[in-house]
Amino acid sequence: MPTTITGFESFDIRFPTSQHLDGSDAMNPDPDYSAAYVALKTDSSDFSGYGMTFTIGRGNELCVAAIRSLAALLVGQTVESLMKEPVTLYRKITWDSQLRWVGPEKGVIHLAGAAVINAVWDLWARIQKKPVWKLICDMTPEQFVSAVDFRYLTDVLTPGQARELLERFSSTKQQRIEELIDVGYPSYTTSAGWLGYSDEALKQKCSDLKTRGWKHFKIKVGRDLQDDIRRCTVLRREMGDDAYMMIDANQVWDVPQAIEWIRQLAPFKPWFVEEPTSPDDILGHRAIAQAIAPIRVATGEMCHNRVMFKQFMQSGALQVCQLDCCRLGGVNEVLAVLLLAARFNIPVCPHAGGVGLCEYVQHPSIVDYVCVSGSMENRVTEYSDHLHEHVHDPVVMKNGRYMPPKAPGYSVQFTDAAIQGYAVKG
Amino acid sequence: MPTTITGFESFDIRFPTSQHLDGSDAMNPDPDYSAAYVALKTDSSDFSGYGMTFTIGRGNELCVAAIRSLAALLVGQTVESLMKEPVTLYRKITWDSQLRWVGPEKGVIHLAGAAVINAVWDLWARIQKKPVWKLICDMTPEQFVSAVDFRYLTDVLTPGQARELLERFSSTKQQRIEELIDVGYPSYTTSAGWLGYSDEALKQKCSDLKTRGWKHFKIKVGRDLQDDIRRCTVLRREMGDDAYMMIDANQVWDVPQAIEWIRQLAPFKPWFVEEPTSPDDILGHRAIAQAIAPIRVATGEMCHNRVMFKQFMQSGALQVCQLDCCRLGGVNEVLAVLLLAARFNIPVCPHAGGVGLCEYVQHPSIVDYVCVSGSMENRVTEYSDHLHEHVHDPVVMKNGRYMPPKAPGYSVQFTDAAIQGYAVKG
Repeated sequence: MPTTITGFESFDIRFPTSQHLDGSDAMNPDPDYSAAYVALKTDSSDFSGYGMTFTIGRGNELCVAAIRSLAALLVGQTVESLMKEPVTLYRKITWDSQLRWVGPEKGVIHLAGAAVINAVWDLWARIQKKPVWKLICDMTPEQFVSAVDFRYLTDVLTPGQARELLERFSSTKQQRIEELIDVGYPSYTTSAGWLGYSDEALKQKCSDLKTRGWKHFKIKVGRDLQDDIRRCTVLRREMGDDAYMMIDANQVWDVPQAIEWIRQLAPFKPWFVEEPTSPDDILGHRAIAQAIAPIRVATGEMCHNRVMFKQFMQSGALQVCQLDCCRLGGVNEVLAVLLLAARFNIPVCPHAGGVGLCEYVQHPSIVDYVCVSGSMENRVTEYSDHLHEHVHDPVVMKNGRYMPPKAPGYSVQFTDAAIQGYAVKG
Repeated sequence: MPTTITGFESFDIRFPTSQHLDGSDAMNPDPDYSAAYVALKTDSSDFSGYGMTFTIGRGNELCVAAIRSLAALLVGQTVESLMKEPVTLYRKITWDSQLRWVGPEKGVIHLAGAAVINAVWDLWARIQKKPVWKLICDMTPEQFVSAVDFRYLTDVLTPGQARELLERFSSTKQQRIEELIDVGYPSYTTSAGWLGYSDEALKQKCSDLKTRGWKHFKIKVGRDLQDDIRRCTVLRREMGDDAYMMIDANQVWDVPQAIEWIRQLAPFKPWFVEEPTSPDDILGHRAIAQAIAPIRVATGEMCHNRVMFKQFMQSGALQVCQLDCCRLGGVNEVLAVLLLAARFNIPVCPHAGGVGLCEYVQHPSIVDYVCVSGSMENRVTEYSDHLHEHVHDPVVMKNGRYMPPKAPGYSVQFTDAAIQGYAVKG
C-alpha cells in the first residue's frame, strides 16, 4: 500500500543560546541555535516524517516560510513515487522553475529544501523501519546513484563512474557495519574552544573532554592574533602533543591576511585550518592552501551545493570536506558530495554542532565509511554536547565516538516539550 | 536637518506574465514577473525611499518576508549616518550576524537586501534631488570607494587601487555626461527571441525592433538543437549580417554538452553565449570559454556577489559581465563589481528585462561610462519592452538607446495603480 503525504506542520524553534556564549566565534558573536522544523503528515496514522534545517536565530522565520512554500509541492504525492528513483524528490524540491529563481540551490530556499527533503527520507526510513544510514547502506550501487542529481557534475563524475566507485566496497559492507556497531565512528569536539570562553573555562573543558575520550580539539581564532596565540598555547599545553588541534576562523580573513595569520599559528601544529575566508572563494582557498601547505584547508559548512564542492575539490582548494546536512539540499545532495569526495580522494569530516546537526551527520559519516570511501583515515565527525535533550533519539557517544543510531528515521524528531517550550509564533 | 527612517511598507507584487509566454526560456518556461517591493517612510513628509527586488513569481513572498526582517534594522537610523560612508549601509544589511547565516550574501536574504539597500540610495538621491546615477557621478573617487565593501576583494583589488582606477576619468566626467544626455547609452533587446514565440512572431518582432533602431538581438536556445538551428537561421536572415546575435541558454547545459552545442551554433556567429551552465560553476565557465574562443562567454544575472564575480573575472571564466541590480547586494555591491570589471578590463553589459530591472540598470551603465570604464566599446545594456507602464518614471528609449533618467531617485517607484492592481496579500 503506498503512503500519501496529506499535509504538514512547520515550526520556528529557537533556543536562547546567546545567553551563555555557547557557539560564539569571530563571525558569530551571539548565536541563538534554531531549527526550522517540518512534520509531514500521511494517510497512515503510523507514519509521519520529520526534518529540520539549522540556523542561528534571526532568519529562521524565512526558512520556515520557505518550508511552507516547498512542502506544499509534496501534498498529494506518495512516498513511493518520490523515492522509486530518489532524485525525483530532489528535483521536485529544487527545480520548481519559479522558486528556483530565489536560489538557485542556495540560501534560504535551499536550507528549507534540506528540511523538506530530509523529512521525506525520514518518513521513508520509518516506513521501512530502518535508520536512514541503514536504508542507504542496503541500497545497491545502482539505487544509490539514482538518488543523485548529476546535473552540472558530469565534467568530473558521471553516473557510471559513481557506480564504479560504489562497487569497490559493495561486497564488504556488512563487516564495516559490524565494526561500527562495535566501536562507533570517531568524532572531534568544538565544545572547548569557543571565543567567548575564558582561558580557565577553555582549560577545564579540554581536560574534561580528554578524560571522556576525545583526541581532536577545535579552537576558534581570528579576532585578535595575540589572543589566539595565548589561547592556542593554553589548549596545546592542556591537550598534549599527541592530540590534534584544529583552528577555525569562521571566514573573517581576506586571502593575504589569512596566509599571514595562519603562518603565525603554524607552531601550534594545526591539523587543519577551517574557513579561512569567504565560503564562496574557491580560488582564494586554493591560494591559501598552496601558501600554508602542509597545513590543510577545511571548509564546507557554508558550501551551498554540489557545484561549489565540485570546484573546491577539482582545484585543490580544500583538503578536508566539511559538508553540512542542512546547507546542502538534503540527503540526496549529501550523497552527491560523498561521491565527489571519493572521486578526488578527499576525506569527509562533516560539520555539526548547533542543534540537530550531530543527529543528522552521524548518518552520512556511516554511509561514507560503509559504502563510499571505505576508510576512517583522517576522518572525524564534528560533535558538540549541546541541546541533545530536545530530540527523541539523541546521539549516543562512547569514548568520543558516535555509536550508530538504531531508531528508524533520520534522528531529528523534536520532543513535544521542545516544541511547546521553544517554538515561537510565525 | 537629518532625515530619520521611521518605518516601512512592503508589498508582494505579481504580474501574470506566464499567460503570454513573455520571458519563456529553456529554464524558466512560465515566469510571472514579480517585485518584492519596499517603501521606506521618514520623519519628513517630503521624502520616502523606494526599492524592489525582482523574482519570477513563487518565492516572491520569501523576499518580502526577508525585506521585513532587514528593513526593521533601519528604523530609527538617519539617512545621513548610513550614507556618510555608504559602506555602513551595506554592512548593516548584509552583516547582521544571525541573518547572515541564511545567506551569506546570497539567495533570498541577499535579494531582499538589494531592495532595502536600493531604497536607501533612492531616498538619499531624492533628498539631494538627483537621479542615482548623477549622485554617484558627482562623488569624488574617495567617496565612491567609501561605498564599497572590500572584504574578500583585497587579493585582487585594494581601496587604493580602486581610487586609482577612478582617478583616470575623474577630470573628464562632465563631457561624457553631456554625450549621454545627447545620444543615450546603447541597449540590446531580448524581446524578439523568447522560446515560447513562433518563428513568425520571432521574425515580426525582430523586424519591428530593427526598424526602431536596435542592432543587437538575443535569442534563447538550449531546449532542442535542431529547433535552435532553425530559429537562429530565421533570426540571422531577418536581422542581417551586420547586426549582432547573442544566444542565451539559461544554464541548461553541463560543461561537455555546452561545448558541443555551442560549436553547432557557431556558424551563426554569436557575439556571445550567455549562461551556458550552472551560475555557480566558475571553473566550468572557464573550460567552456577556452573551448569556444573566440566566441565570448557572458554570465551574471544569477551571480550573487562580488566574491563570485571576482573569481569569474580573475580566472578568465567570463568575457562579458552581466551584473544584476537585484541579485547583487544593491548599489554598493554593483559599484564593487564595476570596479572589478575595470580592474580586469571586462565589459559590463547589465542584465535587465523582467520588471523594474531596466529602470535600475540604466544607472550603473551610466556610472560605468562616466566614472569607471570610460568606454562604451563592446558594451550594451539589456532592454525589454514589458511592464514599464507600472512605474512612475519609466525608461526613455531613443533609437534603441537608454536616455539618462532625470527624475530624482532610482526609478523603481511603482504607481498606486500597479500596487492596487497587482499586490497580493502577504
